[in-house]
Amino acid sequence: MGAMNAVEDVEHINFRLVAVLKLSGELGEDALNALRDFVRACNQTLLKKGVPESGRGAEIVRFRVLNEAERADEAENVDEAENADEAEKASDVIPGANAIEVEIHSDRYVRAHDALLRFRRNLAGVLGRYRIGLRGIDVRTYEIEMDWRDEVRVKSLPFVKNLSLSDGKLRLSLELSEREIERRIPDRILRLLYEKREMARWGGKKEHWELLFESERKEILFDRDPAEEMIRRCWIVHGASRGQWIYGPQITRIFRAFERILMEHVCKPLGYHEMIFPKVVTWDVWKHSGHARAIYPEAYYVCVPKTRDPEYWEDIADYFKITGEVPTDRIMERIENIGGLCYAQCPPFWIFLRGKTIDDDCLPICVFDRSGTSHRYESGGIHGIERVDEFHRVELVFIGTKEQVISHAAALRERYRFIFEKILDIEWREAKVTPWFMAQEGRAGVASDREVGTVDYEALLPYSGKWLEFQNVSVNGDKYPRGFSVKLRSGRELWSGCSGVGLERWAAVFLAQKGLDTENWPQSFREIVGELPEVFKFV
Amino acid sequence: MGAMNAVEDVEHINFRLVAVLKLSGELGEDALNALRDFVRACNQTLLKKGVPESGRGAEIVRFRVLNEAERADEAENVDEAENADEAEKASDVIPGANAIEVEIHSDRYVRAHDALLRFRRNLAGVLGRYRIGLRGIDVRTYEIEMDWRDEVRVKSLPFVKNLSLSDGKLRLSLELSEREIERRIPDRILRLLYEKREMARWGGKKEHWELLFESERKEILFDRDPAEEMIRRCWIVHGASRGQWIYGPQITRIFRAFERILMEHVCKPLGYHEMIFPKVVTWDVWKHSGHARAIYPEAYYVCVPKTRDPEYWEDIADYFKITGEVPTDRIMERIENIGGLCYAQCPPFWIFLRGKTIDDDCLPICVFDRSGTSHRYESGGIHGIERVDEFHRVELVFIGTKEQVISHAAALRERYRFIFEKILDIEWREAKVTPWFMAQEGRAGVASDREVGTVDYEALLPYSGKWLEFQNVSVNGDKYPRGFSVKLRSGRELWSGCSGVGLERWAAVFLAQKGLDTENWPQSFREIVGELPEVFKFV
Repeated sequence: MGAMNAVEDVEHINFRLVAVLKLSGELGEDALNALRDFVRACNQTLLKKGVPESGRGAEIVRFRVLNEAERADEAENVDEAENADEAEKASDVIPGANAIEVEIHSDRYVRAHDALLRFRRNLAGVLGRYRIGLRGIDVRTYEIEMDWRDEVRVKSLPFVKNLSLSDGKLRLSLELSEREIERRIPDRILRLLYEKREMARWGGKKEHWELLFESERKEILFDRDPAEEMIRRCWIVHGASRGQWIYGPQITRIFRAFERILMEHVCKPLGYHEMIFPKVVTWDVWKHSGHARAIYPEAYYVCVPKTRDPEYWEDIADYFKITGEVPTDRIMERIENIGGLCYAQCPPFWIFLRGKTIDDDCLPICVFDRSGTSHRYESGGIHGIERVDEFHRVELVFIGTKEQVISHAAALRERYRFIFEKILDIEWREAKVTPWFMAQEGRAGVASDREVGTVDYEALLPYSGKWLEFQNVSVNGDKYPRGFSVKLRSGRELWSGCSGVGLERWAAVFLAQKGLDTENWPQSFREIVGELPEVFKFV
Repeated sequence: MGAMNAVEDVEHINFRLVAVLKLSGELGEDALNALRDFVRACNQTLLKKGVPESGRGAEIVRFRVLNEAERADEAENVDEAENADEAEKASDVIPGANAIEVEIHSDRYVRAHDALLRFRRNLAGVLGRYRIGLRGIDVRTYEIEMDWRDEVRVKSLPFVKNLSLSDGKLRLSLELSEREIERRIPDRILRLLYEKREMARWGGKKEHWELLFESERKEILFDRDPAEEMIRRCWIVHGASRGQWIYGPQITRIFRAFERILMEHVCKPLGYHEMIFPKVVTWDVWKHSGHARAIYPEAYYVCVPKTRDPEYWEDIADYFKITGEVPTDRIMERIENIGGLCYAQCPPFWIFLRGKTIDDDCLPICVFDRSGTSHRYESGGIHGIERVDEFHRVELVFIGTKEQVISHAAALRERYRFIFEKILDIEWREAKVTPWFMAQEGRAGVASDREVGTVDYEALLPYSGKWLEFQNVSVNGDKYPRGFSVKLRSGRELWSGCSGVGLERWAAVFLAQKGLDTENWPQSFREIVGELPEVFKFV
């Protein structure tokens, strides 16, 4: 939230809210007098609480009582001009008055909707003395006006019925119910606007990159694209789907050799145990992991039949049997989306721990999963086995106290370095990557934030001269334990980290640097992989 | 097709077709005379060729020439009564005659649409002499009337605009273009109708079951539901999705022990090599494998974004950020269905071989895949880990000549028997299962069909007294090589088979019979599985 407050501090923002609070009974003269005193008290103290010197807080600039007729009338004409006469109405007792209309203005301190909720909470006590209860709120209008630089375009937003930008001011007109005020929807809208502005500010630059380690340069043994050579040798064949390969016996053996190296030199010495994480990931999981914020353009979506009654599907099957075509448009009407395919691998694991309290004795917990595929709808850049839609990854997850997680990440990086240096003998480097907005603002000052983050592993692809990110080690702080409500018996803060080992990426890097002929491979790796099997012979 | 012909032989079916063949020029008197002779020849020989004694074949019962005006008129009133005057018209030369209308009746031999195609093919030669070409066909009406038992309900079918059932007769009125005649759509509609009738005939009875082997009875060591006990011990935790588990370290270790047994006692001795099969399966694959005929109620569907342009998805992300909810209805409008998740595991492998010719020398080919999950939208019967939506299976595929595949299946069954008897020590049985309609008809008489089929492995679940199918060995004949156009250099017939080893099913069976306490397990298995890890401790 640091980034957002930093922005807020230097700009102007105004909130203007008109709402009608409905009552269970008629407001008589005594009650009206009490209300008048209460509004005064609100404007003097209640709506100013917690507001700094520089701020103004909220103010009820106008209020009046209404009866049924006026409420209906008003609902049709909410934009009526304010004038002195109108302000006077508040003082008058009117027959059948069973609602209070208030207009609240505020700056960013005690935002108008928070002021309304404070008002309501305390009003209940005031009117209770006259045996009058509160019956709900109609929000008539809610306007926000804020400084906005023209270059950040916003077209439409949920709950915003009108949005205009002129003279460096963004004006929003919101349509909200009482429930949405209670859910602080206006705050969420503002947070989203600030986020969009941050994104625009950093533009294409997604992350700050800082070199941590670079291996020695290695002799170039191969300068072609290994994918093309693998296709030629039938080690890989395009699958029927986009960015998907069928891996033949030779490359599969290489993948499994990588896995054995990982088991022998990382998982065993560091005390990992294998688990099996789910591979269909529901929105419930992605809501908690945060992926529901941004995954949409890259997800592979999973849908299930609205019913598995065979009769419901009979005409679809008939259509295929008769035409030889599958009517996917009609299928779309009969299925519903429940989530997507494994994207980041560890989120669905956290359901195993959700809501549980862990005994400190069993920390650190180190588990890994290699039970299935991951899927990303990649951009045009699908290439060879470096960037594919369907890939295979061993995911390591480590959980412990902050100190345990930080020291485990270091140990993990040690083990990886050993593999890349002593077994695979590749040219590689390690870099700390930080999202730009975090790198640029106050957050870097907070010690824990400096520890949270990702170390990327990159290796040179001689055929293109580019560096490919082929693996990572991330310290995620308390993000997942917090997102999935996992606690520690001692009450200490629980942290976690993860590391994804993509078999395609390891192969892309190793084969690009060493080529496909085993005699050029380091002896250490040849011993592990053994002889590559020749199974198929095509004419 | 055996079943369908058997049915056809005992019933009546009639086809009545009216079509207009459009010509490139005007039919003069000479051409009309030639046409008249040609129609006579058709009715005497061309439309009778290949018709058995008992049959009638096809006949052009009426023909006439039309000009533009009459064609248009006729198109509006196709059901005009036939009468003698009308039949006479054929003889008259009319001005501007540039089309021929024919009415063809037939029984099942030379069906009316085949007769039309024969007529067209030969007509081209007849009219060519007068420099008149064919310009396409309008099918005006196509009626089929056939014997039908009332109990088989058919509501609607593609290309059928009218369908009625009365007096034991089913009457279909088809709406077809020339292209659909060429694609033999009427034949496909009939085939589908016969199939529906076969299905109805066998009702719930899907397959014929024949015991092949039964193990000795074993001492019952456990009589509870192992899934409940696993949940209690946190060996498994429900995943966020339907019929999905997260497998903890203990059960994962048991799964991996099963896998090692399979490697050691099946894959290595029988010469298997590992490959990696795709897990997103496109319709293209399922069209060739035949799954597109019936998979719909049980599939997990995969959809991809219509575009991965982040702007296209921005409002969806905004909606989540503001409301905390994912608008799945709106997502459905922005994704498209490409296929589904792995269901039977081996079909997508066949893309590796599609259209290729294999050298006989490399046979038999034995490969396996264990690279990911399989998914089935199971019915209400989801229970424990016996029947789940997301499961883990090692799939073995063997390819060779017919003799090789048959003898390999036998060898495979030998190896499995060894595992179940000597290592897992379970109570199990082996049964040959055959779809009922195959078991009951002539097909069983064909030697190769007797070899094609599935052997199911079943084991007793003491807690329920039921037998659970936990594995299979299938000989698929030439189905896959034919479906994916894979040939053998020698030209000999290529066969294949497959065997799916479901880790959940093995565990369900083993743990139901032996319980969760390792001291009750056979020594042979305890040595392989080792000590079960205790990783998590919850408060």
